[in-house]
Amino acid sequence: MRPKHVVESQQFTVPLLLQLFERSAQMEKLVARGGTLDYQDRIMATLFYEPSTRTRFSFESAMYRLGGKVLSTEQARVFSSEVEGEQLEDTIRIISGFADVIVLRHNEAGGARRAAQVSSVPIINAGDGKGGQHPTQALLDLYTIHRERRSLDGLSIAIVGDLDQGRTVRSLAYLLSKFERVKIFFVSPPEVRMKQDILQHLDEHEVWYAIESDIAKVLGEVDVVYQTRIRPERVSDRKSIASYGITAKVLHAMRPNAMVLHPLPRTVEIDKAVDDDPRALYFKQAKNGLFVRMALLTLVLEEE
Amino acid sequence: MRPKHVVESQQFTVPLLLQLFERSAQMEKLVARGGTLDYQDRIMATLFYEPSTRTRFSFESAMYRLGGKVLSTEQARVFSSEVEGEQLEDTIRIISGFADVIVLRHNEAGGARRAAQVSSVPIINAGDGKGGQHPTQALLDLYTIHRERRSLDGLSIAIVGDLDQGRTVRSLAYLLSKFERVKIFFVSPPEVRMKQDILQHLDEHEVWYAIESDIAKVLGEVDVVYQTRIRPERVSDRKSIASYGITAKVLHAMRPNAMVLHPLPRTVEIDKAVDDDPRALYFKQAKNGLFVRMALLTLVLEEE
Amino acid sequence: MRPKHVVESQQFTVPLLLQLFERSAQMEKLVARGGTLDYQDRIMATLFYEPSTRTRFSFESAMYRLGGKVLSTEQARVFSSEVEGEQLEDTIRIISGFADVIVLRHNEAGGARRAAQVSSVPIINAGDGKGGQHPTQALLDLYTIHRERRSLDGLSIAIVGDLDQGRTVRSLAYLLSKFERVKIFFVSPPEVRMKQDILQHLDEHEVWYAIESDIAKVLGEVDVVYQTRIRPERVSDRKSIASYGITAKVLHAMRPNAMVLHPLPRTVEIDKAVDDDPRALYFKQAKNGLFVRMALLTLVLEEE
Repeated sequence: MRPKHVVESQQFTVPLLLQLFERSAQMEKLVARGGTLDYQDRIMATLFYEPSTRTRFSFESAMYRLGGKVLSTEQARVFSSEVEGEQLEDTIRIISGFADVIVLRHNEAGGARRAAQVSSVPIINAGDGKGGQHPTQALLDLYTIHRERRSLDGLSIAIVGDLDQGRTVRSLAYLLSKFERVKIFFVSPPEVRMKQDILQHLDEHEVWYAIESDIAKVLGEVDVVYQTRIRPERVSDRKSIASYGITAKVLHAMRPNAMVLHPLPRTVEIDKAVDDDPRALYFKQAKNGLFVRMALLTLVLEEE
Repeated sequence: MRPKHVVESQQFTVPLLLQLFERSAQMEKLVARGGTLDYQDRIMATLFYEPSTRTRFSFESAMYRLGGKVLSTEQARVFSSEVEGEQLEDTIRIISGFADVIVLRHNEAGGARRAAQVSSVPIINAGDGKGGQHPTQALLDLYTIHRERRSLDGLSIAIVGDLDQGRTVRSLAYLLSKFERVKIFFVSPPEVRMKQDILQHLDEHEVWYAIESDIAKVLGEVDVVYQTRIRPERVSDRKSIASYGITAKVLHAMRPNAMVLHPLPRTVEIDKAVDDDPRALYFKQAKNGLFVRMALLTLVLEEE
Repeated sequence: MRPKHVVESQQFTVPLLLQLFERSAQMEKLVARGGTLDYQDRIMATLFYEPSTRTRFSFESAMYRLGGKVLSTEQARVFSSEVEGEQLEDTIRIISGFADVIVLRHNEAGGARRAAQVSSVPIINAGDGKGGQHPTQALLDLYTIHRERRSLDGLSIAIVGDLDQGRTVRSLAYLLSKFERVKIFFVSPPEVRMKQDILQHLDEHEVWYAIESDIAKVLGEVDVVYQTRIRPERVSDRKSIASYGITAKVLHAMRPNAMVLHPLPRTVEIDKAVDDDPRALYFKQAKNGLFVRMALLTLVLEEE
């Protein structure tokens, strides 16, 4: 059941997800007691064509907590742009000679899949392109919900933001479609609605969803508000953007045991006053990324 | 007495400084015999919003010599500038989930203090803003003097350069004010004199100081010449700049057991002919940064 | 026989080369069985004034496979350019206090030699300037040929590309001149022919060579085609460039046991259809860089 590569969220079956969450919980206990594993002879390369300090540090910390070593690049594109016509495939073939696993953030959708086709070591997609995927983010999102609720079946969730270009929310929607009786509210300004391909996928898997533009309507009904950024330049009615934000007033309308998640970084869409509410789980969610990535690394690096 | 964070030089009391110097000397012996400590499960993150290869390598080498691991970023700003309105506080909250200590170089004065307010792990200020502080530089400066003289009481020092914007010399002045019978000569072109806030601090602590613009007048009287850069664009009489430099002739006027220090990098303000003089201690001073930073890391990472 | 620094390929004698190849083969076996050596207290710094992810990762992976630690910089120039007049020599003096070996990629020819003159730890040249050297590339090229042929004496090789500015091919030519009965065909457009200094060096060492502009003429005669890039802007007859490329047709004219090498990255000068031919050894060559760099690191870090 072990995956060779982690390219897109669809590849995870429910049993594999549950195994991953179980292992992530073990990693959380390992880190809490200051322990480590015996990966001291394993090398992970983080090959980032776009900088993302947080995602990179999350993976690198995961490898270090396992005892392993890290080859790191903040901005591989600066280099590759120097040689016009250079191919990602060649770079991957070469780097797979130097590392035991490659974590790739690529600037084009499909980059991770192309890398996986030629790599002799596991590829983990850490985000590819604007319309691509970011499966490990979706896995840590789901782990955070699963950790609090003990189950994903029957989940009711509002996904808020510029949904059409959000690779995070796209990956999340694919994963949610695998569970039973899930209800998804896609809440966004009309110009940046979730794209048709995802809605069609949900239709095919008979997942209930609704398209909303008023967050207030759904707050009382959901277990999770999954908040993301809305870029003002992408919306015609800029004044309306504030109405999608999470404030103390919005919190008040939420269920007492609901949770607010956000892939971070945030700008103005979650008020700082919300941070101290026990339902504000976004920093815990970021920390959970460490455990999920440790678990993923152990899965792909497992000996045959 | 253990500090939680290292934000500004003022926070160090004389007993804590002496403890730090004692521990730095132990680290020097440890490195000399090729030994290490048992920090293999501890992770340090260097979060640099401005690049500084030397300061970063000094901290990273310190963590490695202790046996620990390093998350590294050369230029965190490239990343953060992409997301307008992103907050340092959020970044620190997230990264403190991935590392056991964060070494922060920030581009704004006060950055380290803001980070310390929200971090769940120790913050070490590796320089913040032009008018801010660089306390670990001041600590290694002081350690270098203490190591040679065995005491800081009664020290006579000339601090030379653009003093108004030098965070290094500001941090150093705060530390010197804690010792007995110290004499400070601030030597600079008139446009870039030491700022009033530092002079007032010295007055309050009854430290003797003088404002000079002729280095020749003080050379015979001081134990230390602490040299820094003068940027020509900040001075009206550019021809005068050469008169602040250290040359063989200047050395000749210094006491035989005096020392020349410089936080480096230098440009023209210390002639290369000076490098071979036994009083030229600036490369030794840079190396001492390793031992002081090892000592600081052990202090902030000590178990409660 | 141990070298203190690795600055240029000429410094390697034939016995030292053979010792290096023997040790590289041992490293290959070590990595194959997942073993490591006891370098856990040794630190290597990669100081790159020009980014080169592949070369940097190759060295860093080598140090990790030996068990050691790595201080890394992707783009030291961003930093150093901020301080006009800053000297490489000062940077090296400081960093040699933090690391046990420095791998330097510098933007000026002669940078590595300047660094070696002041460093208290070994310097390894990872490329310096356009007309400079890249000796470790030449060493891995030669190791790859030696590994396949068991000997370099009597080798017949075509070196193809913009030869006048290629530091890789310059370093390689110096090394080849040390062996017996070597035949070198320099194949390039007339504007970018191998420079006179190298040809003169070959004359002095009585090495047979020929200047060619038609690759087809030599294909049947050589053991190795060493292919490099031709930049179109450097050649007047741009249409002719394709004639220097390696295609299935070119392969057909080569000997059955010949090899195609390339320092990589390639653009269009080797067709992807060639990759699956057993004579296409360029990815294996890149991987061999790991073993050669491990061997070099053990040589320069060996205790007196």
